[in-house]
Amino acid sequence: MKKRVILTGDRPTGCLHLGHYVGSLKNRVLLQEEAVQFVMVADVQALTDHAHVPHLVRQNVLEVLLDNIAVGVDPKKTTIFIQSLVPELFELAFYYLNLVTWNRLQHNPTVKQEIKQKGFKEGVPAGFIVYPVSQAADITAFKADLVPVGEDQLPMIEQTNEIVRKFNQLYHTDVLVPVEARVPKVARLPGTDGKAKMGKSLGNCIYLSDDPDTVAKKVRGMYTDPNHLRVEDPGQVEGNPVFTYLDAFDPDVESLAEIKAHYARGGLGDSVVKKRLIEVLNAFLDPVRQRRALWSQDLSALHAILKEGSLHASSVAKKTLQEVRAAMHLNYDG
Amino acid sequence: MKKRVILTGDRPTGCLHLGHYVGSLKNRVLLQEEAVQFVMVADVQALTDHAHVPHLVRQNVLEVLLDNIAVGVDPKKTTIFIQSLVPELFELAFYYLNLVTWNRLQHNPTVKQEIKQKGFKEGVPAGFIVYPVSQAADITAFKADLVPVGEDQLPMIEQTNEIVRKFNQLYHTDVLVPVEARVPKVARLPGTDGKAKMGKSLGNCIYLSDDPDTVAKKVRGMYTDPNHLRVEDPGQVEGNPVFTYLDAFDPDVESLAEIKAHYARGGLGDSVVKKRLIEVLNAFLDPVRQRRALWSQDLSALHAILKEGSLHASSVAKKTLQEVRAAMHLNYDG
Repeated sequence: MKKRVILTGDRPTGCLHLGHYVGSLKNRVLLQEEAVQFVMVADVQALTDHAHVPHLVRQNVLEVLLDNIAVGVDPKKTTIFIQSLVPELFELAFYYLNLVTWNRLQHNPTVKQEIKQKGFKEGVPAGFIVYPVSQAADITAFKADLVPVGEDQLPMIEQTNEIVRKFNQLYHTDVLVPVEARVPKVARLPGTDGKAKMGKSLGNCIYLSDDPDTVAKKVRGMYTDPNHLRVEDPGQVEGNPVFTYLDAFDPDVESLAEIKAHYARGGLGDSVVKKRLIEVLNAFLDPVRQRRALWSQDLSALHAILKEGSLHASSVAKKTLQEVRAAMHLNYDG
Repeated sequence: MKKRVILTGDRPTGCLHLGHYVGSLKNRVLLQEEAVQFVMVADVQALTDHAHVPHLVRQNVLEVLLDNIAVGVDPKKTTIFIQSLVPELFELAFYYLNLVTWNRLQHNPTVKQEIKQKGFKEGVPAGFIVYPVSQAADITAFKADLVPVGEDQLPMIEQTNEIVRKFNQLYHTDVLVPVEARVPKVARLPGTDGKAKMGKSLGNCIYLSDDPDTVAKKVRGMYTDPNHLRVEDPGQVEGNPVFTYLDAFDPDVESLAEIKAHYARGGLGDSVVKKRLIEVLNAFLDPVRQRRALWSQDLSALHAILKEGSLHASSVAKKTLQEVRAAMHLNYDG
């Protein structure tokens, strides 16, 4: 059976956190065993709203790589590459821009919502609006047929499939491969403050690179059930981020069920539950930290991974680009 | 003294005509003696409004090359290249897209006017709106400091200079070179029907590749002074396209002045003036036709010119791109 081809990736605008792990990194570690997987460090995408701080993007490329490797994404099984080192992606995006109307781009729901969130002060950069087309280039360049995304990103994948259909129909070809979006079943990890989402700018993240003391401090400060004032009061488990984290990371499901019941009927203090979470998280993070520390010492090995990954990604994308150009009759060889 | 660097080019959407010659090709032949000149066969730009007929763009690349060589653009002095064979241009354009607001792009006067003229039925392609940014990439990639343009294209050059200023300021560099637009002094050549402009879609062109009989037929059908009904009537010289063409191509200025005077006072028929124009145009076009015929027989030489020109252009653009990436700290080597 033909293996699925997966494209996924991270924006190098900061270190990755537990929310990234639960939402996507964990899955990568599983999927690399059965699929052809490409993990893109999306520096070009990061620049669409970080053009004024490219050095920050540059720095975080290595952090994001380390985060991936530390949780178990294996460069021998997964192609990890830097987006801007695959120049074929730019060219593909330019051809696709002619197949999408200006009007359509302006009404992409994901982009519209992100513009609201980011509140660009000097106006919205054209690169930001155009990004869904660039993403179609990223996906189709590798003939990815599976892209794991959050629900809010579904319109982006729909835009890719519109381009795939339009291209194949217009140029009488099947060069481009339609893609399936897979929304992970796991609940999204809330922030330590109880907000729906961990976000660097919200200051409510536990990072994969946090040391044990930092994790302990952040967990102790976590939002719980605001009505659970005295130990003997019944506490709310559902929607309590401490329990959501335990659900995601505590391997001892049975004992966790008991604790939940105890908390719900009253008599169990937040500090006890938080102590357990600190232990659970540090037990999960300790080997991650060890791998991270080990790799951090070998910068040249990290650079080699990115270089080789990008060369491989570029060779795959080049082949697609040649097929795309041939379908468009843009072959100038004699 | 440092030589000027010129970028100019043609859209391969049809053969070039006398209007192109007077407005730009003639100048190229002169400028290649004193400046570093790049002539771009703009297949990527042509696709922004010809994405549905790429084979037509593909075919016209050779025609446009032949037109240039036939009038005397010398591949030994001028770098003639195919836009899509210089992939660095796509990448530069993508970085620039982050420095231009969506709003600014929508209000480019040249683009707005062209959209009106073209009347896109299925909506305006995003690539068409984005094109001024792509043009900034074309110009800055070669560090061109002089671009010959029609007056209607001035807002495009202003967009390029805005990007140059923004980039250099934001990244504390002087990598990008501001460009000067030079609007040719010569009056624009009207169509054979008297309309202000020759245009393929208007059917009012005399092509550089037209044979003598076709030229004769087109000139005989030319619009003149509609009030010059009888030979003995006084005729209008100004605004009479036959005389505008003679002004542009007749080397015998003195005798032309006499003919104008005669026509103005009456007694000179249109057919006599047209006969002179047929002779003048064919005298100009004969060597052009000869060179065209000669080169047409050597397809491999034509392909070699485009290949070598594109390789050279790519090597120049690659150097600029490296400087651009360095200014943005996007250097990933160790």
